[in-house]
Amino acid sequence: MEFIAIILGSKSDYATMQECLNVLEKFDLPYEIIISSAHRSPERTQKYVLDAEKRGAQLFIAAAGMAAHLAGTICAMTTKPVIGVPMNGGALDGLDALLSTVQMPSGMPVATVALGKSGAVNSAYLAMQILALRDSEIAEKLREDRIMKAKNVELDSQEIEKRLP
Amino acid sequence: MEFIAIILGSKSDYATMQECLNVLEKFDLPYEIIISSAHRSPERTQKYVLDAEKRGAQLFIAAAGMAAHLAGTICAMTTKPVIGVPMNGGALDGLDALLSTVQMPSGMPVATVALGKSGAVNSAYLAMQILALRDSEIAEKLREDRIMKAKNVELDSQEIEKRLP
Amino acid sequence: MEFIAIILGSKSDYATMQECLNVLEKFDLPYEIIISSAHRSPERTQKYVLDAEKRGAQLFIAAAGMAAHLAGTICAMTTKPVIGVPMNGGALDGLDALLSTVQMPSGMPVATVALGKSGAVNSAYLAMQILALRDSEIAEKLREDRIMKAKNVELDSQEIEKRLP
Amino acid sequence: MEFIAIILGSKSDYATMQECLNVLEKFDLPYEIIISSAHRSPERTQKYVLDAEKRGAQLFIAAAGMAAHLAGTICAMTTKPVIGVPMNGGALDGLDALLSTVQMPSGMPVATVALGKSGAVNSAYLAMQILALRDSEIAEKLREDRIMKAKNVELDSQEIEKRLP
Amino acid sequence: MEFIAIILGSKSDYATMQECLNVLEKFDLPYEIIISSAHRSPERTQKYVLDAEKRGAQLFIAAAGMAAHLAGTICAMTTKPVIGVPMNGGALDGLDALLSTVQMPSGMPVATVALGKSGAVNSAYLAMQILALRDSEIAEKLREDRIMKAKNVELDSQEIEKRLP
Amino acid sequence: MEFIAIILGSKSDYATMQECLNVLEKFDLPYEIIISSAHRSPERTQKYVLDAEKRGAQLFIAAAGMAAHLAGTICAMTTKPVIGVPMNGGALDGLDALLSTVQMPSGMPVATVALGKSGAVNSAYLAMQILALRDSEIAEKLREDRIMKAKNVELDSQEIEKRLP
Amino acid sequence: MEFIAIILGSKSDYATMQECLNVLEKFDLPYEIIISSAHRSPERTQKYVLDAEKRGAQLFIAAAGMAAHLAGTICAMTTKPVIGVPMNGGALDGLDALLSTVQMPSGMPVATVALGKSGAVNSAYLAMQILALRDSEIAEKLREDRIMKAKNVELDSQEIEKRLP
Amino acid sequence: MEFIAIILGSKSDYATMQECLNVLEKFDLPYEIIISSAHRSPERTQKYVLDAEKRGAQLFIAAAGMAAHLAGTICAMTTKPVIGVPMNGGALDGLDALLSTVQMPSGMPVATVALGKSGAVNSAYLAMQILALRDSEIAEKLREDRIMKAKNVELDSQEIEKRLP
Repeated sequence: MEFIAIILGSKSDYATMQECLNVLEKFDLPYEIIISSAHRSPERTQKYVLDAEKRGAQLFIAAAGMAAHLAGTICAMTTKPVIGVPMNGGALDGLDALLSTVQMPSGMPVATVALGKSGAVNSAYLAMQILALRDSEIAEKLREDRIMKAKNVELDSQEIEKRLP
Repeated sequence: MEFIAIILGSKSDYATMQECLNVLEKFDLPYEIIISSAHRSPERTQKYVLDAEKRGAQLFIAAAGMAAHLAGTICAMTTKPVIGVPMNGGALDGLDALLSTVQMPSGMPVATVALGKSGAVNSAYLAMQILALRDSEIAEKLREDRIMKAKNVELDSQEIEKRLP
Repeated sequence: MEFIAIILGSKSDYATMQECLNVLEKFDLPYEIIISSAHRSPERTQKYVLDAEKRGAQLFIAAAGMAAHLAGTICAMTTKPVIGVPMNGGALDGLDALLSTVQMPSGMPVATVALGKSGAVNSAYLAMQILALRDSEIAEKLREDRIMKAKNVELDSQEIEKRLP
Repeated sequence: MEFIAIILGSKSDYATMQECLNVLEKFDLPYEIIISSAHRSPERTQKYVLDAEKRGAQLFIAAAGMAAHLAGTICAMTTKPVIGVPMNGGALDGLDALLSTVQMPSGMPVATVALGKSGAVNSAYLAMQILALRDSEIAEKLREDRIMKAKNVELDSQEIEKRLP
Repeated sequence: MEFIAIILGSKSDYATMQECLNVLEKFDLPYEIIISSAHRSPERTQKYVLDAEKRGAQLFIAAAGMAAHLAGTICAMTTKPVIGVPMNGGALDGLDALLSTVQMPSGMPVATVALGKSGAVNSAYLAMQILALRDSEIAEKLREDRIMKAKNVELDSQEIEKRLP
Repeated sequence: MEFIAIILGSKSDYATMQECLNVLEKFDLPYEIIISSAHRSPERTQKYVLDAEKRGAQLFIAAAGMAAHLAGTICAMTTKPVIGVPMNGGALDGLDALLSTVQMPSGMPVATVALGKSGAVNSAYLAMQILALRDSEIAEKLREDRIMKAKNVELDSQEIEKRLP
Repeated sequence: MEFIAIILGSKSDYATMQECLNVLEKFDLPYEIIISSAHRSPERTQKYVLDAEKRGAQLFIAAAGMAAHLAGTICAMTTKPVIGVPMNGGALDGLDALLSTVQMPSGMPVATVALGKSGAVNSAYLAMQILALRDSEIAEKLREDRIMKAKNVELDSQEIEKRLP
Repeated sequence: MEFIAIILGSKSDYATMQECLNVLEKFDLPYEIIISSAHRSPERTQKYVLDAEKRGAQLFIAAAGMAAHLAGTICAMTTKPVIGVPMNGGALDGLDALLSTVQMPSGMPVATVALGKSGAVNSAYLAMQILALRDSEIAEKLREDRIMKAKNVELDSQEIEKRLP
């Protein structure tokens, strides 16, 4: 049984990451979600990551704010891809979380996405793109979604479009 | 024939991205590399991306500096994973390239790695982690590499270690 | 029939860009406005830019936030002037959008104006200044507007002015 | 006699702005260049701007660093388009010059280009794009230049391209 | 008749600068205040500065936001001391205004104080410190104010002080 | 009688620092708290620091915002450890306070913790960790707290956990 | 005997502040200069400030880098004007020193000038502008200097000026 | 046997941290130093921290750059004080390392010192200040060092001091 494993650094990240869950549910991607902190519950984090990997986790999505070490910490525990979602709201509107997530040293990548809600959505899409490499059904869903997105742009545009004579 | 497609925004990105190629060659990962700019050669970029995808490109690595639009532009052309490597050296030591690469809107993810050389190395590792999901040989190489890395840390440490009486 | 072509990266940019439309309407400048994203609807963007240019678009105004690639993407499709309006509200109060818009590589200019509402207004003024180079009527309107602006400063000042004895 | 008027805030900006002159000379665009500071020689700046406008200056290019007020100051003296080139090298690698140039208040636009050398080149290209609106010869040169740029990307690429078997 | 001349770049700066006026009124310092923009009303600004200097202005306080050129522009018109108060609220919480105000080139100083309300208060205090150099009455008021400030700290402290047994 | 001495730069820091007091009271750590400014009441600050040290203060916690000199000023008056808590809310969301607190010159350390409420909490924890080096009771409380924290993470997680079939 | 009192936070600031001394010597302004740190020699700093004030110091110029507390510390000891020169070279090219110097709390102003060498020069000019309020000779020198500066701009310009036919 | 445990994230941090060792050796403080990465050798890090604590480590000093997770990771493994030294040189001159080190969540403090060499020195001093709480010999050394530092400031000053007649 394959799935996406989502780890939140704290309960306060849930509201933002709901956007990620919405995408995964819309596209019927199986996932698990837990809260576990890199600092407050390091053993729980390690235990979960190792166990999830054994049970079929294909990749990890980690959401954290401030000195956002969670994604990097998970990266150190597994060679599965780790997607990092920096939460905004701390110093510099989340620049602390962004730099803490993306500036990983050589050989220890975290696939970092945008700050906050856009990043939450994109973590789900990136996970789907990765899984689609060997699942043509997901790949097809992603292609259809792109067509829908382009159509929605057109619909949005019709509301405001205006051609002067 | 599956491969990794690497696109550099300009010739000046080559020296930094050599670090990426070194990793891919060390681990025998097939790749292609071209220079194509999001702005100076948009048609070439589009043509290459569509063609590479047809010929078996599994994912794209895009390296660019300043207003680094290349990874996002490629993301708009394909639903394959796109890894973005922001080049440093512009305004704010590369903060322009980092923000231009990572701050993608909802539904259009770029898997962003660190600025400059560390990011170049990490783009190769992230690509391998993604491909390892369906290639147990790569997965094994990654696990061995982790063991080597930990050993190298020990060797580095022995040079400086010191225990006072 | 000559006109100004305005492209918004998303519906959420409309409220801010209303300030641009107000200026253009006040001065009777013909314009078109559509929503089209650099990433979600790249083909629509390209098709519109090429078509608008044929139909008489003299210059393009592009408004986008976050990794604001829209102005740069349009610049790559046309040699007409492209004015970029970075939207604020993302990471660092819009610094991401500003750097993504202005830091274009050599030979691919985007005429970048201020963040947010001031930039929206200024994109209209800059467009008028450019068109005024061959339209003495617009030039005259701009000169009159400057006189009005100076007068308004005086009126504003009268409300608060105070001379101590 | 129409021309582009270039004003440098100080002698030290010349080396960077040589890149602008190179482009204008390559494309045979007539220009004038002087040094005049917004702060050290405000009268000279005003006198030159008013005189240049009378003699046929179509637009102004202003290059300045640090608290780069020059472009904004010129904007206050004329309704011709003003292109601002922020010089790098000050605090935050030129962020001071960038923000001082681009963050102009409503109704007073400065068409801001990238920091440093790329901006110097782009100020020339933007000037050409603006003048091309009523000069089909320049317009043609710009279209040819784009084709050359795309070809140069290909030539650059051939040096490094590599296709693994 | 000697006085302090205060210039606001726009009406919206008045609320913040009220804090400056409060201090000057509390200490009975004569002042004038007008609104005049470096960009929208450059002639009015120049005329006022020259006239105020003739009528006895000892120093200028300039408040402006965004690309805050006002203080630097006044500095170029007079050799009297110019105090710059950067308004916050623009990009980067006012970093644009701070850098535009403080980063003046060699030989053209602006005495820059803190962003926003603290800066508004401090512009009044700095003006008083400067005038106190030749007015022993103001000097005495400043010394008394320091004693009051220290006492107020004590009073504030008494509300929260707490000594555990 | 040993205690922790807490100094707030102004009354407005109290609400944030209440978080520090809550921790100290929960763990029964004796403390004193006063308001005293590095700038408005320098003598009071010095007198308090020297007196507190004599009366048994083991370490100092200093909370201040903006150009947060308080911790550094205290550091210059004593060789006891000084913990600095930068308050957020000023320019750049508190980056000014953070840099003013942490960037101390060689030989004059301030133990800086996070911006705002997290820092307030952490100043109490860091103080406890330091005092625990010679107080096994505090050390035991800290170990128990860690276990509680890990348990709380689990409880938080149970509310949102979800395992898809 | 009136004079300007200059305090450097460390020996390493001397090379930059030589630019300040050059200006003062060129204009025959009497000054004293010492090294005294806010943190390493707080008593020496206080003793010097109080003594210098008694002996005729009209204002203080303080140069410091990193968490540049020196100017603020001096401000707390005297009601004479204090000019702060932030040294560059630390984190963020001196942004730490700039924010630590300028972001002073209400009622405690530091007249902050530009980062590094420009600021060193400007601290001398600002001091002269302040002293010129009651010394018509200095005032005259400043007016002459402005004329020279404008002439030097012209001379600089002649080297590069160019008028195309 | 009590000692200070120093952990470097990579060999490249050694040159900077030599400054820390110099201080500890000058004051005869027993220490151990190893290289161990939060990411490349997480098990080694954990094993060392737990073992060092058992063998008498009183506190930990962790030096790391980029997404500097090392100090935070160690903090999660022990309740001994952890001093974090952010290395400069990465994006934004080390702002990434500073924010990654200092912005720790509630209850998990890292005592953060300045970027780079000053921080390396200060980590040693802070360690000594903490240990001095129960070692009067170290306390005495710290007090003597302060006197020396003040004397050195005087000696530095004598080289440049100058009193105009």
